[in-house]
Amino acid sequence: MERHFDEELQQLHKDILKMGVMTEEAIYKSIESLKNRDRSQAQEVIVNDDKIDQLELLIDERCIDLIARHQPMAGDLRFITTGMKINAELERIADISVDICQRVLEIVDKPLLKPLIDIPKLSEVAQNMVRDSIEAFIKKDVELARKVMSDDPEADNLRNLIVEELIDLLKKDSKAAERAVALLLIARYLERICDHTTNIAEDVIYMVEAKVVKHSPDNPA
Amino acid sequence: MERHFDEELQQLHKDILKMGVMTEEAIYKSIESLKNRDRSQAQEVIVNDDKIDQLELLIDERCIDLIARHQPMAGDLRFITTGMKINAELERIADISVDICQRVLEIVDKPLLKPLIDIPKLSEVAQNMVRDSIEAFIKKDVELARKVMSDDPEADNLRNLIVEELIDLLKKDSKAAERAVALLLIARYLERICDHTTNIAEDVIYMVEAKVVKHSPDNPA
Repeated sequence: MERHFDEELQQLHKDILKMGVMTEEAIYKSIESLKNRDRSQAQEVIVNDDKIDQLELLIDERCIDLIARHQPMAGDLRFITTGMKINAELERIADISVDICQRVLEIVDKPLLKPLIDIPKLSEVAQNMVRDSIEAFIKKDVELARKVMSDDPEADNLRNLIVEELIDLLKKDSKAAERAVALLLIARYLERICDHTTNIAEDVIYMVEAKVVKHSPDNPA
Repeated sequence: MERHFDEELQQLHKDILKMGVMTEEAIYKSIESLKNRDRSQAQEVIVNDDKIDQLELLIDERCIDLIARHQPMAGDLRFITTGMKINAELERIADISVDICQRVLEIVDKPLLKPLIDIPKLSEVAQNMVRDSIEAFIKKDVELARKVMSDDPEADNLRNLIVEELIDLLKKDSKAAERAVALLLIARYLERICDHTTNIAEDVIYMVEAKVVKHSPDNPA
């Protein structure tokens, strides 16, 4: 019984990792579709989101089932409920990648306003934050979770740069309005993805440290 | 013991309701601060967000504790884990109200671009969706949850109207860029709030119907 439970926890690790990889890929492809004016790649991300939604439901079911059948102790219980939250965050990140692709489809037939440099850079930051936050969860690595949180100001700065530049552009060339607004929203979407990863990082820290508190000499419960 | 558990479930109802009320108020005040160019009201929402964050943590702790001590059966377990998810959604909605207030603070010293009609209307839709989605959870009312989901296209339409109007305005008057972009983001924020309420509604439907399936004659487990 105990061994079976450990195997199921391992399966949960694998499922969350898979969810993380699929989500990271969705972000990457959404920005590739923007860079390459690639309508079919944008559509692929949108269609593929169904698979991510299905995996989210499956993970959620498994977590509930795991709790109901094994009635885990506090530490494992907290790991599983944190997994459920992270699962939901990843699904939201994938949804935001779909939002990006929808903006891409709106402007895909028009020439780029300017060479894209900071948006792909921000996307890379976001992808790294997703990867690190999931690794922090799996390894219960508070240091890595803190690193994710310390990356967030960099993302905010990049987003500010992008937004300021686009507002300047809007002031100079009002015909660029649709394209500038689309890029502006895409920059915000990427920043929101980073925010979701800091939610994951916070959950990881809380999961690990609440456990530490529970086991500290001051609170021997 | 059984009675104690029921009382604690009732407490969870109350806590989530309180979280819902506080969140709804944050949305309302954020848009009031926009309408009235009221810096101090915007700042109040931002400061008050700490209390909402604290309540989120408290609810989360109580849910984990409830599961750990009472090891509830599948139906109750699903109600509690759904409560945890809804709790997180409400906290995100409150965060978005803070985002709205930050945009308000950026433009609070400048005159309004145009009379605000559709943004307050969209805010009202959002507030109603929050209230209905929480009521649907407490009452396990699938019909009400479906109503919330059917309200979402109205929110999308309103947001589209607002965005189109602002892009037209941007094309005509490039000096309006900052203010138009701020309003455009606020419209998107409100739409995101509505999306969070449909997440809650989906969670409620899933919670109730998964239970129904579990108890159906085809699956007498």
